[in-house]
Amino acid sequence: MSKTIIGDAVANIPWEDRPSGCSDVMWRYSKNPIIGWNPIPPAARIFNSAVLPFRGGFAGVFRADQKNGRPQLYVGFSDDALNWKIKHERLAWVDPAGAPSPTSYAYDPRVTLLDSRYYITWCDDFPGPAIGLGVTDDFERFTRLERPLMPFNRNGVLFPRKIGDAYVMLSRPSDSGHTPFGDIVLSHSPDLVHWGRHRMVMRSGGEGWWQGLKIGAGPVPIETKEGWLLIYHGVSAPCNGYVYSFGAALLDLDDPSKVRYRTRDYLLTPEKPYETVGFVPNVCFPCATLHDAASGRIAIYYGAADTYTAVAFSQVDELLAYLKQNSQL
Amino acid sequence: MSKTIIGDAVANIPWEDRPSGCSDVMWRYSKNPIIGWNPIPPAARIFNSAVLPFRGGFAGVFRADQKNGRPQLYVGFSDDALNWKIKHERLAWVDPAGAPSPTSYAYDPRVTLLDSRYYITWCDDFPGPAIGLGVTDDFERFTRLERPLMPFNRNGVLFPRKIGDAYVMLSRPSDSGHTPFGDIVLSHSPDLVHWGRHRMVMRSGGEGWWQGLKIGAGPVPIETKEGWLLIYHGVSAPCNGYVYSFGAALLDLDDPSKVRYRTRDYLLTPEKPYETVGFVPNVCFPCATLHDAASGRIAIYYGAADTYTAVAFSQVDELLAYLKQNSQL
Amino acid sequence: MSKTIIGDAVANIPWEDRPSGCSDVMWRYSKNPIIGWNPIPPAARIFNSAVLPFRGGFAGVFRADQKNGRPQLYVGFSDDALNWKIKHERLAWVDPAGAPSPTSYAYDPRVTLLDSRYYITWCDDFPGPAIGLGVTDDFERFTRLERPLMPFNRNGVLFPRKIGDAYVMLSRPSDSGHTPFGDIVLSHSPDLVHWGRHRMVMRSGGEGWWQGLKIGAGPVPIETKEGWLLIYHGVSAPCNGYVYSFGAALLDLDDPSKVRYRTRDYLLTPEKPYETVGFVPNVCFPCATLHDAASGRIAIYYGAADTYTAVAFSQVDELLAYLKQNSQL
Amino acid sequence: MSKTIIGDAVANIPWEDRPSGCSDVMWRYSKNPIIGWNPIPPAARIFNSAVLPFRGGFAGVFRADQKNGRPQLYVGFSDDALNWKIKHERLAWVDPAGAPSPTSYAYDPRVTLLDSRYYITWCDDFPGPAIGLGVTDDFERFTRLERPLMPFNRNGVLFPRKIGDAYVMLSRPSDSGHTPFGDIVLSHSPDLVHWGRHRMVMRSGGEGWWQGLKIGAGPVPIETKEGWLLIYHGVSAPCNGYVYSFGAALLDLDDPSKVRYRTRDYLLTPEKPYETVGFVPNVCFPCATLHDAASGRIAIYYGAADTYTAVAFSQVDELLAYLKQNSQL
Amino acid sequence: MSKTIIGDAVANIPWEDRPSGCSDVMWRYSKNPIIGWNPIPPAARIFNSAVLPFRGGFAGVFRADQKNGRPQLYVGFSDDALNWKIKHERLAWVDPAGAPSPTSYAYDPRVTLLDSRYYITWCDDFPGPAIGLGVTDDFERFTRLERPLMPFNRNGVLFPRKIGDAYVMLSRPSDSGHTPFGDIVLSHSPDLVHWGRHRMVMRSGGEGWWQGLKIGAGPVPIETKEGWLLIYHGVSAPCNGYVYSFGAALLDLDDPSKVRYRTRDYLLTPEKPYETVGFVPNVCFPCATLHDAASGRIAIYYGAADTYTAVAFSQVDELLAYLKQNSQL
Amino acid sequence: MSKTIIGDAVANIPWEDRPSGCSDVMWRYSKNPIIGWNPIPPAARIFNSAVLPFRGGFAGVFRADQKNGRPQLYVGFSDDALNWKIKHERLAWVDPAGAPSPTSYAYDPRVTLLDSRYYITWCDDFPGPAIGLGVTDDFERFTRLERPLMPFNRNGVLFPRKIGDAYVMLSRPSDSGHTPFGDIVLSHSPDLVHWGRHRMVMRSGGEGWWQGLKIGAGPVPIETKEGWLLIYHGVSAPCNGYVYSFGAALLDLDDPSKVRYRTRDYLLTPEKPYETVGFVPNVCFPCATLHDAASGRIAIYYGAADTYTAVAFSQVDELLAYLKQNSQL
Repeated sequence: MSKTIIGDAVANIPWEDRPSGCSDVMWRYSKNPIIGWNPIPPAARIFNSAVLPFRGGFAGVFRADQKNGRPQLYVGFSDDALNWKIKHERLAWVDPAGAPSPTSYAYDPRVTLLDSRYYITWCDDFPGPAIGLGVTDDFERFTRLERPLMPFNRNGVLFPRKIGDAYVMLSRPSDSGHTPFGDIVLSHSPDLVHWGRHRMVMRSGGEGWWQGLKIGAGPVPIETKEGWLLIYHGVSAPCNGYVYSFGAALLDLDDPSKVRYRTRDYLLTPEKPYETVGFVPNVCFPCATLHDAASGRIAIYYGAADTYTAVAFSQVDELLAYLKQNSQL
Repeated sequence: MSKTIIGDAVANIPWEDRPSGCSDVMWRYSKNPIIGWNPIPPAARIFNSAVLPFRGGFAGVFRADQKNGRPQLYVGFSDDALNWKIKHERLAWVDPAGAPSPTSYAYDPRVTLLDSRYYITWCDDFPGPAIGLGVTDDFERFTRLERPLMPFNRNGVLFPRKIGDAYVMLSRPSDSGHTPFGDIVLSHSPDLVHWGRHRMVMRSGGEGWWQGLKIGAGPVPIETKEGWLLIYHGVSAPCNGYVYSFGAALLDLDDPSKVRYRTRDYLLTPEKPYETVGFVPNVCFPCATLHDAASGRIAIYYGAADTYTAVAFSQVDELLAYLKQNSQL
Repeated sequence: MSKTIIGDAVANIPWEDRPSGCSDVMWRYSKNPIIGWNPIPPAARIFNSAVLPFRGGFAGVFRADQKNGRPQLYVGFSDDALNWKIKHERLAWVDPAGAPSPTSYAYDPRVTLLDSRYYITWCDDFPGPAIGLGVTDDFERFTRLERPLMPFNRNGVLFPRKIGDAYVMLSRPSDSGHTPFGDIVLSHSPDLVHWGRHRMVMRSGGEGWWQGLKIGAGPVPIETKEGWLLIYHGVSAPCNGYVYSFGAALLDLDDPSKVRYRTRDYLLTPEKPYETVGFVPNVCFPCATLHDAASGRIAIYYGAADTYTAVAFSQVDELLAYLKQNSQL
Repeated sequence: MSKTIIGDAVANIPWEDRPSGCSDVMWRYSKNPIIGWNPIPPAARIFNSAVLPFRGGFAGVFRADQKNGRPQLYVGFSDDALNWKIKHERLAWVDPAGAPSPTSYAYDPRVTLLDSRYYITWCDDFPGPAIGLGVTDDFERFTRLERPLMPFNRNGVLFPRKIGDAYVMLSRPSDSGHTPFGDIVLSHSPDLVHWGRHRMVMRSGGEGWWQGLKIGAGPVPIETKEGWLLIYHGVSAPCNGYVYSFGAALLDLDDPSKVRYRTRDYLLTPEKPYETVGFVPNVCFPCATLHDAASGRIAIYYGAADTYTAVAFSQVDELLAYLKQNSQL
Repeated sequence: MSKTIIGDAVANIPWEDRPSGCSDVMWRYSKNPIIGWNPIPPAARIFNSAVLPFRGGFAGVFRADQKNGRPQLYVGFSDDALNWKIKHERLAWVDPAGAPSPTSYAYDPRVTLLDSRYYITWCDDFPGPAIGLGVTDDFERFTRLERPLMPFNRNGVLFPRKIGDAYVMLSRPSDSGHTPFGDIVLSHSPDLVHWGRHRMVMRSGGEGWWQGLKIGAGPVPIETKEGWLLIYHGVSAPCNGYVYSFGAALLDLDDPSKVRYRTRDYLLTPEKPYETVGFVPNVCFPCATLHDAASGRIAIYYGAADTYTAVAFSQVDELLAYLKQNSQL
Repeated sequence: MSKTIIGDAVANIPWEDRPSGCSDVMWRYSKNPIIGWNPIPPAARIFNSAVLPFRGGFAGVFRADQKNGRPQLYVGFSDDALNWKIKHERLAWVDPAGAPSPTSYAYDPRVTLLDSRYYITWCDDFPGPAIGLGVTDDFERFTRLERPLMPFNRNGVLFPRKIGDAYVMLSRPSDSGHTPFGDIVLSHSPDLVHWGRHRMVMRSGGEGWWQGLKIGAGPVPIETKEGWLLIYHGVSAPCNGYVYSFGAALLDLDDPSKVRYRTRDYLLTPEKPYETVGFVPNVCFPCATLHDAASGRIAIYYGAADTYTAVAFSQVDELLAYLKQNSQL
């Protein structure tokens, strides 16, 4: 039994063993995609979404591109984390006083269980892309909090506990368009309202062209005995559009601005029809993981082609061993 | 029997009922695409084309991307409007004096039956993209007329009758490249030669991102008791290329620069392999309709991925009801 | 006495003889600029403006960049066409019914005396740059008419009489930004409302780099026995910004889409401090002429550096002789 | 005697009365520029700099473009605030532990007297442009503090006192290049380290083209009985480069994210040779004021053409009266 | 028996007869692609590669995009030229003195048998794209030589013999990005080190839009009795990305800068799923041919979608006849 | 007497001692510019030109922007190298067979005395910018030779003698537009026709922003006992256009691809009115030197604002001493 992941056992997370003949450290679910075109009446596409264990089953906050093309957040529940019941009404934000506080648009959510509450970060309109922050206790009532960082920013990811005396968030300073650059930065806060001590964590570029254009944090980092395991996306830019792949890094437990290992190669890149064809071809965009501390199993949830939701699997000890042996900082 | 459409009965137009389990107001033909790769020797791809009833059967003017990559117009005929015999020789324009008047390039034709003659509008080289105008009585002899509007312009669509004492045309002022903007404008003419009284009809942008970048008129508007039914294309611009979807609007019968209803959501967006993969991925571009005043049936002809010709269906009363209930101006 | 110019004697137009030692066919007024920074309280800069004889003196419609940076039109009067009294209130457009019809912005006016009325063309907001058209009889009441052409267009210039049975206008199809291209096109109208029969007149580029990027019509063409004398601007684009110079062409009297002669070299290019330094460095932009049929004298009014109003002189017979000897089509 | 400015009397600030014949509310110093080309051996140009009263005279932190073209900060002192002795050695930052902490580059400083210490904000390399923050007590030892905000940001300006229980800063979210957009945003902090509660203050664009492209805070706001007086820069973008002008706004004393008045027109725009010609033509960039609570006199220090340091004058009661009468929000 | 190709009989080259019902002069291998995703452990994609006869079988130099996204060259061997054994270790360049000389990146190789040695050209990092040149005798030891031409250049192709007293190379001057232009130029050398006498061969653009944006030489030219048969790629640029097709030209035997015939239409354009979907959709990029002088058979090897290796077939006499009848210079 | 420069005494080169109060190692001629606007009838501006000693006086090849805006080369002579008689007829190239070989355009010439002949390099149209090469013995008959390098390239500068057994040239690979990048590369040739062994010499960027965008070789390098003294231009890109300054480097005598010293700071940057205002503001572009081996005096000829010709002075021993003490590689 693995003791590598620091956290709860989640025995019922989805799992498939590595296919025979495959030697990769991460592999796709054989029944991908788990969410296809037009999954609920108001939505054309659901992808780039966040799920986590909730009351014995699973809950999720989903990016749904509505049929007017504008992304908003929706809530869903599942018993097995593969078949999802997603509500047909948009997630209804209220402000701290309880008044409705709707979003102009909202996309690419992450959900972090922190201090026994569920915090949601997403890309919000300040105006201009900025990190939104909200909280729920029950996935019924959702309260918007102060936006933590200045625009223009995307891919805000909150750590699942304080480090030292500070809350910690990853993000990627951006521009107001399709942003042809991007590095991962870490920020600190005493109160989740005021943020400072911004630190560069990882930069795009370097030897690996798969992450040559920009990178961004993916799922909430997984705490392990050896450090914070961060799955992130890297983007290359060949002549016919951006290509989004997965990488991973191991960040120092006490100071996650320190990168101890980082994948030289991508872990997963668009190859399958549901990844290479769709609203935005050639995108694999990881937004969440489920992980079982007992078995070390990890299920990675990712958006495919800005159209589908898909799942991949990995085992933490194998992934860390691979990461150490194939690291390039 | 529907009396909504003002016009002729066309009993033999193509039709399939809505598939079971589908609740959409517009649905695809199950045997799409009806025209595939290399349909005639000189042409690689036929798409974005115009068809209409003719002498008991159907005639059409087709955009054919020739094997040198350059688009020109070709003529075709059909008994059922699904199986098309397209001539292998290019449509041969003559000027009013009867001399040959070939086009440098020509694309995206529409054909309007007006004053008992067939008028063709297309995107022509002025130099630079401009609206071409020509006329035929028999789909054998085609006469070019004065270009109605200044470059740069595309998607010129002539109404099928005078409104008041004026001929009326929709168009989209453009630039000379791939044009990252575009609204629909209406112009008036006493004589089909001189045009003026230009009026803004609809602008791109607003709440619906599916039409956030640009919009353009599609098929010749359908006259109904409630107004002119316009099917149009809307374009969004995610990071890997433009995506073309369908929308609809209902314009005032007496002053079609007044928009009474306009779809909040797209009606059809690229989802199928023949729409998402091809010479230009993610394009659904409507250019013509057939419609039967007796039954209210509408068959929409659209180009898919700048490669294929496809068909979708809708029923006018259902479509108008939907439009009224889901409108956003 | 010259009989070359077809028109009135205007004995009191400004004039200076060619400076000694100068052999150029066009020369600057020694007291340039005639209008400097902050000429009236609401305006920072007055330039690119139109003047003409009026009731024994002179009247003008001026582009004034207001102190909010937005250009609007203002009216002025002068006894000698050099010292101008410009009204402090903006030119007040009304619609044909007499209701106020203010412009969002307005710039680069030309004024044409046609059918005994004064017609003004300018660059107007359609939205997006388009040709505005209006008329006055007394420079007190100004009535806006239908915009003659589709956006995006600039530099609309109306001829001072019908040619054949048509009104005739030059313009330059543009884009919605700083437009890195541009040719001169001619259009016809039976009624000043509806326009058609668009004809290419002259294109940018060719041997002369001074007009390699774009060209645009300048003052109202001067009718001469030999043809319409058109002074126009040509733009080159070295690495630090556009440079605007003057050229001239002689258009056929009966069909002004036919260019008979065109200057190979610029006639005047930014050299003086008031031309090379200012809000937009390196601009000489001609918008109007005064000309005396008795003497053949021409005074060209031009904007300098988008900041100043300046004057240059030429004599029609000399200019035509030069044009014929130094022409390149 | 004016009581409008809340603050100290500074009897020895520079002053010239309004020139006769001038009716503007802000006017230039007749001996501008006060700092010209190559003012000290290591520097080519000194501009966009901050000065304030210090020990009976004046101190300043200066942007100096060194002869390698790279900007860094330098310190200077003056008895009359017009003739400056600027040290030849670069300002030597140390970190809180006292170790050297040099900047890669540094530009456009502001200095705020706050809690009896002198805080400096400037544009720093994070990498990428970000707000730097440091402090000094004596203009001899300078300590760098945490960068307050995420990149990309410029024009950070700290208020001279807490408002409520928070420190307050203005800034302009930017991109990593020449940034063709920009609004002024206000942020709050309990401790000068962590920042949150970001509020939009003013946006570029609107009626005034002089501020149509972007705006940014200028000098430290001046506290007055009627609100915080903010002088800011606005940028327009004609075809040959950006033009930087001055504007002013009055912000609510208790909640400076509320704009009470804002100049419709620019207060000062590049006209003079030292403003229109230089390393970057057509720039007037205000970075500091001196102001005397006794007389209400204000001296504005601004960079001209990214080459010179210049001064302009205004009187607070006149300026506020003008602002109220010529405001456009 | 054909005597058209000047060269060796290669009886064992791959071949399939033209499919029944197909009248094209070039047709695809029915079992395409011959190399798919992840063909060897270090490589994600192998494409745009060069093969040739070697010791009774076949050898090849392959572009492999490694799993870090960076392309490098790899060596492979085959008995039938369809099933390839590609080494798992990168091609190991040494300099002329025998020291390792690794490439930063390397792509799009061609291999030319010249003076009984195998010369490899590829796109190398100078820095910036430039033509690399190397040589091998045995496909085991590879020696890098002087780069023949200045950056920025791509698609260098060496002729298989001297012409007159000079070595001859085709190339395409480029820029450092995705290069939106490109013509084919020919250069001469006495020694393979020094190059000069650069001659324009063919330009992009013209009537054929399939080659309107840029063109580049493909496989090593095939010597025939009638001239050098050059297969090349042409690129068009519709709104959603570049599209790469094949063309052919016949160059003069004694002066290959003279083009005798050139295909008006493309010979092959992306239609198949392995051509239209992948890392770069819509790419068919020819890099090598095998040809049998005895039968006149030609097998063209091409990269598909920057992901796969594919094969097409043609017969030299048919191809030349087609080329003569469908030529447009 | 200096023995530093290896070469001839040229006692009559222009000279002015360093102005009193100036401590710079390079200073401007007090009577600059030596060539102003419209210096000869066909030319508007003469600048960026090459001069050298010839038959006891001086000869030069001049870039003249003709009054059609297109640059061509002209020949001139002078007794004192300050007052120039420039011929009114364009330099008339012939090909080696004696036939006329006119240039489409030609700019930025350098002239090298090599093997007792005068070789001219310039920027020529291949099509697209490329290095032109020609030769004269008497400045009367000029013969064009093979273009030495592939397009796109500018700033080709030939060394004045063979180094080892090779001719040597510096150049800057470019793109076809205004080229926002550029490094200096060195190439070798056995015969002035074929070129190879290309070596990177110096790159733009680094600590010095004055040369952050691009650099290019200037005058023909001066041979000194300590190495080749190269004066070059460096370009920075603030928000309103490129700024061209001077730098210097000392290259190894036997292998000039090795840089021994390079100026950290610019030597001269646009400050004077004739440098900051003109056709292209803010340009100082060195193209030639005169130098006297006896006194060590150097006169640098440079174009100013793409409008004027100007001169600066330096003394070789002082310049080398400065270069060694202020070098940054």
